[in-house]
Amino acid sequence: MSVLPIFRSVIAFVFFSLPGTALAKEAVDMIVYGDYVLTMEKGAGVLNNGAVAVKDGTILAVGPRADIEAEFKTKKKVSGTDKVLMPGLINGHTHAAMVLFRGMADDMTLIDWLQNYIFPMEGKFVDKDFVRAGAQLACWEMLRGGTTTIVDMYFYPRIAAQVYKTCGLRAILGAPMIDYPSPGFTGWDDSFAAGEEFVQNFKDPSGRLIAAFAPHGAYTVSPEHLRAVLAAAKASGAPLMMHVAESPSEMQVMKERYHNTTVRHIAGLGMLDYPLIAAHMVWPDEDEMDMLAMSQVGPIHNPTSNMKTAAGFSPVPQMLAKGINVGLGTDGAASNNDLDMWEEIRHAALIHKGKSGDATIMPAKTVLAMATRMGSAAIGLGDVVGTLSTGKRADMIQLILTSPRLAPLYDVESHLVYVAGSRDVVTTIIDGQMVMRNGKVRSLDRAKVIQDAKVQADKIRAALEAEK
Amino acid sequence: MSVLPIFRSVIAFVFFSLPGTALAKEAVDMIVYGDYVLTMEKGAGVLNNGAVAVKDGTILAVGPRADIEAEFKTKKKVSGTDKVLMPGLINGHTHAAMVLFRGMADDMTLIDWLQNYIFPMEGKFVDKDFVRAGAQLACWEMLRGGTTTIVDMYFYPRIAAQVYKTCGLRAILGAPMIDYPSPGFTGWDDSFAAGEEFVQNFKDPSGRLIAAFAPHGAYTVSPEHLRAVLAAAKASGAPLMMHVAESPSEMQVMKERYHNTTVRHIAGLGMLDYPLIAAHMVWPDEDEMDMLAMSQVGPIHNPTSNMKTAAGFSPVPQMLAKGINVGLGTDGAASNNDLDMWEEIRHAALIHKGKSGDATIMPAKTVLAMATRMGSAAIGLGDVVGTLSTGKRADMIQLILTSPRLAPLYDVESHLVYVAGSRDVVTTIIDGQMVMRNGKVRSLDRAKVIQDAKVQADKIRAALEAEK
Repeated sequence: MSVLPIFRSVIAFVFFSLPGTALAKEAVDMIVYGDYVLTMEKGAGVLNNGAVAVKDGTILAVGPRADIEAEFKTKKKVSGTDKVLMPGLINGHTHAAMVLFRGMADDMTLIDWLQNYIFPMEGKFVDKDFVRAGAQLACWEMLRGGTTTIVDMYFYPRIAAQVYKTCGLRAILGAPMIDYPSPGFTGWDDSFAAGEEFVQNFKDPSGRLIAAFAPHGAYTVSPEHLRAVLAAAKASGAPLMMHVAESPSEMQVMKERYHNTTVRHIAGLGMLDYPLIAAHMVWPDEDEMDMLAMSQVGPIHNPTSNMKTAAGFSPVPQMLAKGINVGLGTDGAASNNDLDMWEEIRHAALIHKGKSGDATIMPAKTVLAMATRMGSAAIGLGDVVGTLSTGKRADMIQLILTSPRLAPLYDVESHLVYVAGSRDVVTTIIDGQMVMRNGKVRSLDRAKVIQDAKVQADKIRAALEAEK
Repeated sequence: MSVLPIFRSVIAFVFFSLPGTALAKEAVDMIVYGDYVLTMEKGAGVLNNGAVAVKDGTILAVGPRADIEAEFKTKKKVSGTDKVLMPGLINGHTHAAMVLFRGMADDMTLIDWLQNYIFPMEGKFVDKDFVRAGAQLACWEMLRGGTTTIVDMYFYPRIAAQVYKTCGLRAILGAPMIDYPSPGFTGWDDSFAAGEEFVQNFKDPSGRLIAAFAPHGAYTVSPEHLRAVLAAAKASGAPLMMHVAESPSEMQVMKERYHNTTVRHIAGLGMLDYPLIAAHMVWPDEDEMDMLAMSQVGPIHNPTSNMKTAAGFSPVPQMLAKGINVGLGTDGAASNNDLDMWEEIRHAALIHKGKSGDATIMPAKTVLAMATRMGSAAIGLGDVVGTLSTGKRADMIQLILTSPRLAPLYDVESHLVYVAGSRDVVTTIIDGQMVMRNGKVRSLDRAKVIQDAKVQADKIRAALEAEK
């Protein structure tokens, strides 16, 4: 946690010591309290009875309540009684609008699911209205559960950006590019052109929304096209995201087509020399993990989706042991079936213990870091969010610990990982804006969110029933 | 689902057709509705717009709303708008009062956890007050989340029974027996004697609470003692429960001590010929699963605990394929860290897909059956609870589906497994008693539950800190 500059304390002390003198406290927009503050800075533990001062959407200081109150004054205090205050969660890989396909088709093979449900339904229904309604619904769920930053990969990113601008979410928006026909596109050329145009022209004065390139995967985009998008990313400096080494079927295709693994294949294309956000990363081998450790790649672990689609268990403990910043993501709700980062946290903590036979791996503190500090580094926003630190943007959440479900409380970090969940989140603040308070999302109209989703879902349901 | 006797419909039709005639409807205690009714009977799907008539704590009829209303009248109607109505969940293995150790120690080896935390703390603190406070806290959490039946294995079962009597939970209470010193006992002789006394003398006129034998495990109880407890169970007809083939370390001990596996060892003692409730069952081999399929044993799958303690992944899909009724359980909250059956449902649906590489196994419908119908069979209560069927006890729950988290709704069973959770449960009914309504537990005083837990937790916390 950042230590307050000593001179400030000295000044405050001097002024406090002189009765009748005007206070030297600095006015801030907001002070947010927490009986338990997790800055999530490396090596930090739990700060009891702490507070964070926020001004102009930035964290000005973090420290013990008494110190913060000695330094700063505000008209807006957010109580921290019985609450944890921590950085907002970072969902490193999702397809937000796909929440409209949640529960449409489950418990089937990846091929059956994609070819008979997802692709046909996307072809029929994914348009601007779909993305608007889906992004709204996703936004409500994510803000409600304490997610403050997402890496989104879906069609019509400009429409999604409008929604995120309104609802207050921080997002990296990847324009999807693929060699096959997809909603709005006939194949690579027009999807790449649209993506380039989006990245070049998208502007968000707040800096909260960032346009990015999102080639689908190394098995669905040719090497030439991947070289082109990498060059475009380098030229613009925009983030680059892709599905990497997700499933056994992908690995099989790569082997047959390129006689190679996905990671080695994209390494040969130079993609490991760029800060690639690499979703899934289920099947890197030992040497490839060493390559990743030397690279700028940020792998994103999606445990729920990887189980549900039978992709497998990513070697996350091994990647962490090599010093790789691994983030966490929900993937789309069509393969999850929700956008709840607390479930990803819980699953990440549990499944690797079960798989390895070692109950000491993936301890609570590590998994919380994956959802915050490491996640921010993995997506290239390590200097912007991910910890409660002076100078970072004020993205933070409060959870309340008063439910009998959370009693007794011996260890806050343990509870956050093994017991708490989105229902316990009561406050969500992004860029210093309180987008959720007392468990109520303020930046979206709940009834409209549901109604707009219903309009889309009714069409999808009718199509599903027509095909039965 | 049970079909209403035709003659009743005919009578109702005749009486309705005669204006001025007194209605022939049968008065019942309660009619509970559901826009979506899951009877969970074998082969049944989702009944839209259904209802259940309840009298004297028993299910009198299940059917379409119109049919039920034509047959029965009541002063107490429980609305089913936007709700799922289904059987209450069956937690086939737990140590309820251990909820007071929730989050006390995590992310360590089983031996470290048991020897340095659980056993010493149990030795110091587990007494009647501890069990009363712990069972209360557990009861609140379980009723809140829609669990209506538990198989409990913990010390002072008479005290726990008092709590369950008050809070309304259905429970099989296993008296713990072990060859080593344990709370209240010096070893086998007195723990066995106390257990026998409990089973012989415990009376519950309601039939909702059942006394049982609970030898700890085949690696902690000698073959002679297991024979004795099996004989006692047979003599009394009481249920018998035990941890079976849970962890690699158990398997190692069994191999070294008996040159055998756990299942073969207890088969040799005759324990497979009794309806043994076999908690965990992580390590049966193929032949042993065939033996289990021929036996009366009910394995209970505890996926969260098995991951957290690094016990491994139980071969549940294989057991189900052999026709074994596998139930679900939370284990104690000390190794979970909650008593949320919805998480067990979700984990059971997900982890086996991830492990096997087959996304079609453990489909939603199957896992819901494990938590209800199959679970009731596994614990010997298949004729009493587990489905909404005429003649069974009225143990049922309602979940409300109005949260944006649950939109859109294409498939109720998918949502129950992959999205819904304890927070969505709004009604819990056991033996026809409404123990939770509108999400509020009525049979327990929430403030007292928390306060009593706090008294115990403060002592434990002080002891933990003294040892640091």
